[in-house]
Amino acid sequence: MGKQLTGAILALGSPQEKPDIRYQAGFSVPDPVVYVQQAGKKYLVVSLLDRELARRVAPGIQIYSPDALSIPRALRGTLSGWIVGLLRELDLRAVTVAADFPVRAADQLRRAGVRLLVADGPLMPERAIKTCVEVDRIAACQHAAVQAMREAIRMIARARADKKNRLRIRGRLLTSEHVRRAICRVLLDHNCAGEGTIVACGEQAATPHGVGHGPLCAHQSIVIDIFPRHLEHGYWGDLTRTVVKGNPSPTLKKMYFAVKAAQAAALAEIRAGVSTRSVHRLTTAVLERHGFKTGLLDGKAQGFIHSTGHGIGLEVHEAPSLSLRPGRLRAGHVVTVEPGLYYFQHGGVRIEDTVLVTRSGYRELSACADVFQV
Amino acid sequence: MGKQLTGAILALGSPQEKPDIRYQAGFSVPDPVVYVQQAGKKYLVVSLLDRELARRVAPGIQIYSPDALSIPRALRGTLSGWIVGLLRELDLRAVTVAADFPVRAADQLRRAGVRLLVADGPLMPERAIKTCVEVDRIAACQHAAVQAMREAIRMIARARADKKNRLRIRGRLLTSEHVRRAICRVLLDHNCAGEGTIVACGEQAATPHGVGHGPLCAHQSIVIDIFPRHLEHGYWGDLTRTVVKGNPSPTLKKMYFAVKAAQAAALAEIRAGVSTRSVHRLTTAVLERHGFKTGLLDGKAQGFIHSTGHGIGLEVHEAPSLSLRPGRLRAGHVVTVEPGLYYFQHGGVRIEDTVLVTRSGYRELSACADVFQV
Repeated sequence: MGKQLTGAILALGSPQEKPDIRYQAGFSVPDPVVYVQQAGKKYLVVSLLDRELARRVAPGIQIYSPDALSIPRALRGTLSGWIVGLLRELDLRAVTVAADFPVRAADQLRRAGVRLLVADGPLMPERAIKTCVEVDRIAACQHAAVQAMREAIRMIARARADKKNRLRIRGRLLTSEHVRRAICRVLLDHNCAGEGTIVACGEQAATPHGVGHGPLCAHQSIVIDIFPRHLEHGYWGDLTRTVVKGNPSPTLKKMYFAVKAAQAAALAEIRAGVSTRSVHRLTTAVLERHGFKTGLLDGKAQGFIHSTGHGIGLEVHEAPSLSLRPGRLRAGHVVTVEPGLYYFQHGGVRIEDTVLVTRSGYRELSACADVFQV
Repeated sequence: MGKQLTGAILALGSPQEKPDIRYQAGFSVPDPVVYVQQAGKKYLVVSLLDRELARRVAPGIQIYSPDALSIPRALRGTLSGWIVGLLRELDLRAVTVAADFPVRAADQLRRAGVRLLVADGPLMPERAIKTCVEVDRIAACQHAAVQAMREAIRMIARARADKKNRLRIRGRLLTSEHVRRAICRVLLDHNCAGEGTIVACGEQAATPHGVGHGPLCAHQSIVIDIFPRHLEHGYWGDLTRTVVKGNPSPTLKKMYFAVKAAQAAALAEIRAGVSTRSVHRLTTAVLERHGFKTGLLDGKAQGFIHSTGHGIGLEVHEAPSLSLRPGRLRAGHVVTVEPGLYYFQHGGVRIEDTVLVTRSGYRELSACADVFQV
């Protein structure tokens, strides 16, 4: 992934917010820590508050608390001070940091004479290749997503349309919020959180990141995108289905079958060694062959306006990217494959599955039936 | 808060992860955006994917997509390119960024001739002073936390101890995981997520950030720390209670009453104008007066090993801090008040409420009964 990294790696932040640190340290606390890795050895500086926890759960890592380090007076009480103290302890003068390393700490370290290299790509590219344990964790989230999807689709299937085409269950309006709540409940039964779950209908489904609000309607597409995060280990799953209660318009039907065909083509292409860009180009080509254009229509971005997929793990979006960016699939990558079409006049359609890349192809992490009309 | 900021402010990142951006833009998407504010005017650069959403929900902000900007060739396709394009458009050469602004973008901007000032404190100190809408949002989360706490305490109260002092309900072991699940379920009914909820018993409760695992036991303290995040608007609440099923040891009882007294003293001190440091010092003094020391015991940090409280809003920990750091309370601050004591031999005790600072004192955001023995 781009530039050759120096031997030593430095990360700074809360394990809860920095997947690199959580990946290495194996625990998640809200307060910031310093992580350094060199020649296969791992070091953490944590506050006194978290030291016992860190000692217990991160046995392969040498744990320091700031009071054990020699910190220059000017940097006492700062995280940069912890870093300088640890780097002195380890006799390190140059470290590689991630692109999102905080600028203030970077400036302070440089002033203190530390040479910082900024990684071009991921600081820990090994995170993209999943171990068996990681695959199992993602699969567990994916399984939770499948169960939640089934519940969501059951609700929509059970509903009846009123005269204004709004869906109702036992007379009560069925809203995005209701379905989202039901999804989150199922996810919780699997120890997952469902923050950000998308249940978007009609025109709302034409903006891929809108979560959806208000009544769901018959004859329009409803995009359901469930990306559960496990409450204990923090890994993610990602699953999208698009359903219509009633009768989709001919265009919506065409959109659905184009997306379905594009996903099938992309999946058929997936295996270790394949260029990620070629998967994305193929997906785009299939959608175009079905007659769907991408670009500005009426001044708005419409068509296939996102990438074909992304890696997933301790981040919901991580390397590799199935987009125009260069890259190559490797065995052990876990990626989403999620073509979509978005037109304000017709609504949105997206179908997404999460798969493990293997030498000869891929393995679905949890199978989910694909129904369109319910 | 420290250094005088220049007129123009720059933030970069995903609104989902950067509260400063979410605060200003009012929407939450996973992909990165660029935010600039100058002379009361606000600007966003968002990808084509999110442009329509941004236009709809952020009406007071001028929205750009990257194709509308003149971006130097070397920075095409980079977020730094978006920034340089926008700054040229606005004829800005110097901007203030937050301490956690990403170093790679900072380096690229500096190379492109942009002068970056790094804020000493919060980039948007105004976020610490809550509007009525924000207070209502935090109060809604706090209300959810209270309901969830009641459910958790009911479960523990209903349990019976077996011969090994493990709690059981209808014969089944009652674990941290069970109670945590029940808490999350109640939070979900209030449209909140409960990621990170702490239900920690005995020695586990002596590490303030351990979430707790396995069977809960009688006669030991159980620390329950609930910090719900609202799934729609993203604000947080924060509430902690400590309970014992059965008979606490005399020391545990003493710890409880010391923490209770320390919290009462801290709350009595809270009002606009008071030094945050003095609140923390008072809390510490009360605990010491009750005979509880803080420091290294048997090589482990024990006693009152964290701050008295923290601001809360779009971040679960934000300004102001009730700690040894200097600062002054202002009307409109929303802070937690949460003294605690932690000894590996005896367990942990923490009591936490979240209050709105007013001119004459404080307002509790949602009252929660405080019981110790259940």
